[in-house]
Amino acid sequence: MTPARGFERSEYEGRVARAQARMTQAGIEALLLTTEAEVRYFTGYLTRFWESPTRPWFLLVPASGAPIAVIPSIGAELMGQTWIRDIRTWRAPDLEDDGVSLLAETIREIVGDGGIVGLPDGHETHLRMPLADYARLGQAIGKRRLGSDQGILRALRMVKSPAEVEKIRHACGISGRAYARVPEIAREGAPLDEIFRRFQMLCLGEGADWVPYVAGGADQGGYGDVISPARPVPLRRGDVLMLDTGLVWDGYFCDFDRNWSIGPASDAVKSAHAALIESSQAGFAAAKPGATASDIYEAMNAPLMKAGGGTDAGRIGHGLGMSLTEWPSLIPTDHTPIEAGMVLTLEPGISVGSRIIVHEENILVTETGAEWLTTPAPAAIPEI
Amino acid sequence: MTPARGFERSEYEGRVARAQARMTQAGIEALLLTTEAEVRYFTGYLTRFWESPTRPWFLLVPASGAPIAVIPSIGAELMGQTWIRDIRTWRAPDLEDDGVSLLAETIREIVGDGGIVGLPDGHETHLRMPLADYARLGQAIGKRRLGSDQGILRALRMVKSPAEVEKIRHACGISGRAYARVPEIAREGAPLDEIFRRFQMLCLGEGADWVPYVAGGADQGGYGDVISPARPVPLRRGDVLMLDTGLVWDGYFCDFDRNWSIGPASDAVKSAHAALIESSQAGFAAAKPGATASDIYEAMNAPLMKAGGGTDAGRIGHGLGMSLTEWPSLIPTDHTPIEAGMVLTLEPGISVGSRIIVHEENILVTETGAEWLTTPAPAAIPEI
Repeated sequence: MTPARGFERSEYEGRVARAQARMTQAGIEALLLTTEAEVRYFTGYLTRFWESPTRPWFLLVPASGAPIAVIPSIGAELMGQTWIRDIRTWRAPDLEDDGVSLLAETIREIVGDGGIVGLPDGHETHLRMPLADYARLGQAIGKRRLGSDQGILRALRMVKSPAEVEKIRHACGISGRAYARVPEIAREGAPLDEIFRRFQMLCLGEGADWVPYVAGGADQGGYGDVISPARPVPLRRGDVLMLDTGLVWDGYFCDFDRNWSIGPASDAVKSAHAALIESSQAGFAAAKPGATASDIYEAMNAPLMKAGGGTDAGRIGHGLGMSLTEWPSLIPTDHTPIEAGMVLTLEPGISVGSRIIVHEENILVTETGAEWLTTPAPAAIPEI
Repeated sequence: MTPARGFERSEYEGRVARAQARMTQAGIEALLLTTEAEVRYFTGYLTRFWESPTRPWFLLVPASGAPIAVIPSIGAELMGQTWIRDIRTWRAPDLEDDGVSLLAETIREIVGDGGIVGLPDGHETHLRMPLADYARLGQAIGKRRLGSDQGILRALRMVKSPAEVEKIRHACGISGRAYARVPEIAREGAPLDEIFRRFQMLCLGEGADWVPYVAGGADQGGYGDVISPARPVPLRRGDVLMLDTGLVWDGYFCDFDRNWSIGPASDAVKSAHAALIESSQAGFAAAKPGATASDIYEAMNAPLMKAGGGTDAGRIGHGLGMSLTEWPSLIPTDHTPIEAGMVLTLEPGISVGSRIIVHEENILVTETGAEWLTTPAPAAIPEI
């Protein structure tokens, strides 16, 4: 069943309240947010217009009261359809003053002298405004100070609400149906770039709003990497084809892949694929409240090591939600406690000679353990 | 005819040489680049993996010699297929040190004490790395200083090479064929979200690599804005439907739109559309070397004012290339000299009562004047 689009207003009020509780603890008087996911998290402002790098967008979350949008006038109509009522606009682009004065004025209004404005500044974040304007802003806010959000956005976004989970589950379902149809488009002789193109059409046909991410590979007994664009190289017998997609439904991503053998799979490919499935299953079993991200990593890594070793990807899973990849990372050094409501990808990779094979599933952590959001792949690699 | 994918090595060498000439003039010893388009401009590194916000990527362009990539190990294989030979990797994500030490070490190697590392910091740019890591980098490079690139990237990227133009032209052709097929998917009663989905499938079917941007609107006699996602609202007789797309072919965008009237168009809609076409034609005539961006604006704005006024979009055209929108802006205050090789969108908008209608074409500036990259729309709005 298709979930409702958007969220109840209470969803946003809850997010703001949780942010404000943490802000009080951290001594932060306002959050300043500049990226798509951060702005949307508190507002529901959903548009593909972020693809244009021209205009900066700002959202202020004060220590009490509702968020204030400080945005280009082109976005006023759409922002006006969200629950946000305080919307201040300027006519961007303005080469002299692209929103900096308006933003500074708003900050001076809601933050007292000496107060700290917190910005996401840690791992997996960036500031989406010109650096020179950021320096100007620092000057223009007088005795207030631009500082760190101390990980508040990270902490909030890592744990998903039931309504968020339903959107991700729906995205996973769409992608699952598209994967099931890959044998319609992938066969010996079909060029990989054409398969990528047709796979995106399958994703849309099955109900994706858009398809921000498709990657994959195909080569004899494995592939070289998992982030390359497709080339017009025809599939050959003996290739392992992998497609990985992050499609979006109502602003939420899935992120998982599938592998196929073109013709009969070699024993090496068969056992590598089986080891990847064993690794995902081990991750699934380890993903429960009380564990850490590194515990899941260790559980997943053991079968990979036994089977001959991992890849250079740097991690074997991660968070998932409004962005294709989110915190935490499944690596030995990420000791983030796993909580109910987290959505994770399990993404083990394995070396097969000079090639690699990577597998990926999406799961939800519940109070009692993990739940599949994808229909997990069988141990035997499907043959086309 | 489909252009060749990629570029000759000389294309990249030329870009580096032009950057280095400007760096010498500006007293910059290295450029530090962090965003997709900036890194790709000098390397050809093309991947959709930038959709993942997790990992930072760095490219250094020294004052002499070839660029140095400082990137996560997951990208080594693909970067190794470009012309870049000096590729330094770390295993990202690393929660303790996510490439900062490796980057600082490389900067210390190529930049002398007191030397300036230039970063794009102006309009339409941002820094794609965590703010806290940027501060750490500033500490870690000793007596070198992080400063502005003084607009070097902007100046270089604004003027396209013939090979770049052919990619944009090809993207425009794909989109043009998809627009021609819109009557197959848009009719009274068809829900707008389904039209958006099917239009993306048409773009892919006609040869797009991917479709990063689709926006549009449909309402009685015009629409409310041009950046909203589609809702499941059926088209009605009297609606003006607009679809705007930025699809990508080999890493280069088109960005233009088309309007249709569902059923017969009202006189107000007919004359608004005709005024938009008149405005684009005026922009086309004004776009030649010797003019400024503001001259094109003035030429385009006159017919709009005569017809009743513009919109809140903030500009009526912009540059186009590796990003959906690039410098310059067609606004009264952008006095950027127009040069041969610039690719521009002409994007006039007009108010029709409480609604708007926006039209967009793409052009190339040549030594002797403009050339259409799109097949320009006729003055009469097509009726479905």
